[in-house]
Amino acid sequence: MKKDRTSKPSKGEATRAKILRAAIRMISDQGPDAVSMESIADGLGLTKPLLYYYFKNKEALIEEVFEETSRESGGDWAAALDRSVTLEALVRGMLGSRMKFFRSNPEAAKCLLKLYSAPESSPLSRMADKRIARHAGALKKVMAAMESDGRIPPGSAEDARLLVRGVMTLTIFEFQHSRFANFPPDFADRMARRIAAAVSAR
Amino acid sequence: MKKDRTSKPSKGEATRAKILRAAIRMISDQGPDAVSMESIADGLGLTKPLLYYYFKNKEALIEEVFEETSRESGGDWAAALDRSVTLEALVRGMLGSRMKFFRSNPEAAKCLLKLYSAPESSPLSRMADKRIARHAGALKKVMAAMESDGRIPPGSAEDARLLVRGVMTLTIFEFQHSRFANFPPDFADRMARRIAAAVSAR
Repeated sequence: MKKDRTSKPSKGEATRAKILRAAIRMISDQGPDAVSMESIADGLGLTKPLLYYYFKNKEALIEEVFEETSRESGGDWAAALDRSVTLEALVRGMLGSRMKFFRSNPEAAKCLLKLYSAPESSPLSRMADKRIARHAGALKKVMAAMESDGRIPPGSAEDARLLVRGVMTLTIFEFQHSRFANFPPDFADRMARRIAAAVSAR
Repeated sequence: MKKDRTSKPSKGEATRAKILRAAIRMISDQGPDAVSMESIADGLGLTKPLLYYYFKNKEALIEEVFEETSRESGGDWAAALDRSVTLEALVRGMLGSRMKFFRSNPEAAKCLLKLYSAPESSPLSRMADKRIARHAGALKKVMAAMESDGRIPPGSAEDARLLVRGVMTLTIFEFQHSRFANFPPDFADRMARRIAAAVSAR
């Protein structure tokens, strides 16, 4: 997980974080289109100019909601560029932090689902497309690196990428609809082992 | 795929199918809450009594939308109860028909996403929960049968179920956001082989 800020956040950072949490909660309740800068400011008792000081418009705020949910839910692949990290360890870590994030931010999974299903005419839909493409691209790069330095066999990067994306996507639906009730407690560990086995087979 | 009707549909069945298609299209555009029985009747030039003759209310219509999208997109597991069907063949078939279905019904993936992200207060949300639970249960039964008759190793049913659900779920997002542009053309075949290898490992 990225941690490039000092451990004690400034007052400005705390306000920014509070705004983000409120936006995630409101989007998960009402959907992205129904949420306005005005309703966020009202809900938090902030003035509109202060809200605009932190986020220049609603699009910028939602970009940051995407960033926040993905950064903290296992979307930071930097660890994988360390050649001592195996595919199994990587998947275990990614799934583990994602599940932990959804559990302590129960509205985040629903917020993501809502953003992903925004109408095609909405700018949010293009933002979601872009974000999915960026993450798919990042994962592709990571798997290509693993293949090229021999951590996974030749020709397996593409399948590894697809299997990992499959289990990551499943966590969104499963959290939203059953709070992981149908997952074994060691889900992250099992999937990591199975995917590693699948990828090294033949 | 189930096919328990005669090959030439009656006029009533054709009307019923036309209503379902319209409902899927309208839900995928506007979301389930914005679509009313009235707007569906208007859109098709049907009288309201005729629409209610086919579907007793909006909930019944949406139940059928769920059934239709899942039946035709690889949710019919009956084939797996035939002991000669391997896990690999099953997954290949399921993914293959799902991708074919989304390609020829481009609005179905978005319609599913919209239904899955309905507000928790909406009856649709409970319907989505129920449907997900039913499908998860059906897949669980299939994998248990495969394990008990030795088609997959002891103790592997749960992981098989989760991997299959992962790749099935991924198809919804991937179709919606890139029309499978990031999938290799032999996606179904590759995932079937990888999942079979993962499940039989160790």
